[in-house]
Amino acid sequence: MSLRIDALELHARARGKIAIISKVPVTSRDDLNLAYTPGVAEPCREIYREPSLAYTYTSKCNLVAVVSDGSAVLGLGNIGPLAALPVMEGKCILFKEFAGVDAVPVVLSTQDTNEIISAITAIAPTFGGINLEDIAAPRCFEIEQRLKEILDIPVFHDDQHGTAVVVLAALLNAVRLVGKELGDCRIAISGVGAAGVATAKLLLQYGVKEIIMVDSKGIINRNDSHSNEAKAEIALLTNPECRTGDLRAALKGADVFIGLSAPQIADRSHIAEMNHNAIVFAMANPVPEILPEEAVAGGAVVVGTGRSDFPNQINNVLCFPGIFRGALDARVRAITDEMKLAAAEALAALISPEELRADYIIVDPFDPRVATAIASAVAEADAL
Amino acid sequence: MSLRIDALELHARARGKIAIISKVPVTSRDDLNLAYTPGVAEPCREIYREPSLAYTYTSKCNLVAVVSDGSAVLGLGNIGPLAALPVMEGKCILFKEFAGVDAVPVVLSTQDTNEIISAITAIAPTFGGINLEDIAAPRCFEIEQRLKEILDIPVFHDDQHGTAVVVLAALLNAVRLVGKELGDCRIAISGVGAAGVATAKLLLQYGVKEIIMVDSKGIINRNDSHSNEAKAEIALLTNPECRTGDLRAALKGADVFIGLSAPQIADRSHIAEMNHNAIVFAMANPVPEILPEEAVAGGAVVVGTGRSDFPNQINNVLCFPGIFRGALDARVRAITDEMKLAAAEALAALISPEELRADYIIVDPFDPRVATAIASAVAEADAL
Repeated sequence: MSLRIDALELHARARGKIAIISKVPVTSRDDLNLAYTPGVAEPCREIYREPSLAYTYTSKCNLVAVVSDGSAVLGLGNIGPLAALPVMEGKCILFKEFAGVDAVPVVLSTQDTNEIISAITAIAPTFGGINLEDIAAPRCFEIEQRLKEILDIPVFHDDQHGTAVVVLAALLNAVRLVGKELGDCRIAISGVGAAGVATAKLLLQYGVKEIIMVDSKGIINRNDSHSNEAKAEIALLTNPECRTGDLRAALKGADVFIGLSAPQIADRSHIAEMNHNAIVFAMANPVPEILPEEAVAGGAVVVGTGRSDFPNQINNVLCFPGIFRGALDARVRAITDEMKLAAAEALAALISPEELRADYIIVDPFDPRVATAIASAVAEADAL
Repeated sequence: MSLRIDALELHARARGKIAIISKVPVTSRDDLNLAYTPGVAEPCREIYREPSLAYTYTSKCNLVAVVSDGSAVLGLGNIGPLAALPVMEGKCILFKEFAGVDAVPVVLSTQDTNEIISAITAIAPTFGGINLEDIAAPRCFEIEQRLKEILDIPVFHDDQHGTAVVVLAALLNAVRLVGKELGDCRIAISGVGAAGVATAKLLLQYGVKEIIMVDSKGIINRNDSHSNEAKAEIALLTNPECRTGDLRAALKGADVFIGLSAPQIADRSHIAEMNHNAIVFAMANPVPEILPEEAVAGGAVVVGTGRSDFPNQINNVLCFPGIFRGALDARVRAITDEMKLAAAEALAALISPEELRADYIIVDPFDPRVATAIASAVAEADAL
């Protein structure tokens, strides 16, 4: 109850969380002559002559739009654009505080795929990058894919790729700790939405050979018919042995359980079905798929959640500020799988083998090295 | 040459002119818990329950989009969205410095009327108001009109209405000074674009009975065919005597000459055709329709321009910050003619009868009373 009151009070006090400021002085007529008319015509002319100079003379070089249609906000669901604004503003201030990226919220009055793509395409010249946020699956896949084809600036759906990068980083350290090879691990993922699909794909890119995906109806199987293209595609890429059954069947013999689905769907008996030295990331928010103490009771040796009040908080805030910092600095056209893999490795490497513990497989969001390490990894992957 | 170098250096130094900052602390886990997850869910829930609370819990209450398609930028013409960005950023910092309004640039990759309307409609939930900027006529008229019908936030094309308000304010003081009644004045307007049409309409609203509009082809006449609807409409509203001819014919016997058109189109012989105590506002930028000394040589007794290096700078910056300050504070749905008239009266009234001089008919943009006076006038007009 106190969190509720405090959060409302915080948001009402300053009437929102972001403000725009001038980076140049505007206190005299001379200032106006340079920053506005007539002086402003000079950078306009230069950019007209050579469009890439927009990155030299305007804020485009450091400006990201955090765009949402409000269709899949936090655990709240389809609450629409206005109600999504506090989340987008929150994202914007994290961009700034963690990586010096200027970010503005853009919430959309439409939830139509084509209209969303048109609107983002229309406003894109303003920005150095587009962060898609809280857009429901499967629409989010097509929107991101088509925007990547259309635009010459990076487009990144954080719910997909931010999650995938942070999960991979935590997993790299977890398997190191328990002495397994990630490529050899059998991994069960609960949740076939934006985060689940992207995480599976990034793990496959890394070299994981056996992933089993489960949704509320059971294990995803290539022999079944699927409600959307993204599910059909991931069905072909996962579950090589064509297993069937429920979450318990998926977890049988698994080395890793990644929950990106719904609260309280497993108990210790599920974890007991897993391989020895089981790793459990239960990331449903705010209530995880299984509480850490219950997972440990079932035999898990490394447990992570999305929450700040348990150890090993596997949170996107570890990823997106640094990803965009690197993408903007290196002025990349797209954020590639290689960049995501490099970012995950860099994030994992912030914990040395000596420091690694079951309750410290991923660094704290306030670790000052995070954004720089990821930004460098992105820029280096771009240079390859 | 030095202005050019200084302006480019200013724009390159900070890489653009705007930055986004957080209004709330983000330095601890507790801060994150309130400003981001899980606390941020609380204002989301509240806004979902009652959408108007977006004005309480988000930056929407103070956030304006400065939107352009880059089709009519300064005197540079159709230079496109990227090259227009410095102007839009300039506008944003003026919004902040003069009236505390947070404004973000939004430049569009399309110059199609319907696509512009769709894009702005899509992003509108983010903002408390839309400032249209540097969009070519006649497209700008339809865009503004349709957006006003669609959106529940104020939409204001500054090139039209900002200009009209400031011209009316200067004119109120100019006629006061020369002892004429504005309603009885014959007014010649050169330029039938966004600014010319809007200025004519606002003057008609004020009660001016005889306006003659001239474009590069001559006086606009209801008996002629017109290249667009806006010209056809203004032709019906002006030139009651159906005069014909060129600029010289339009100025014959006129009390006021308002230039919103092109550089150097008149000389002292044109002004000599005007009525006694002639008023000349030559606002083409950077080179006016006639230079002040030339206008005076032709008999003008009050002369204004858009430039800061001559007396009586009639500049939009006197208007738009205060207009939006008032519109946001009173949360008006639209900026009406009554508000514009009230804003012009308030702006004019900042100069007392005792202070009024031929070289001081309009206050300086840095006069600290400007934004507050206009904002109050807008709010009061809304309350009527």
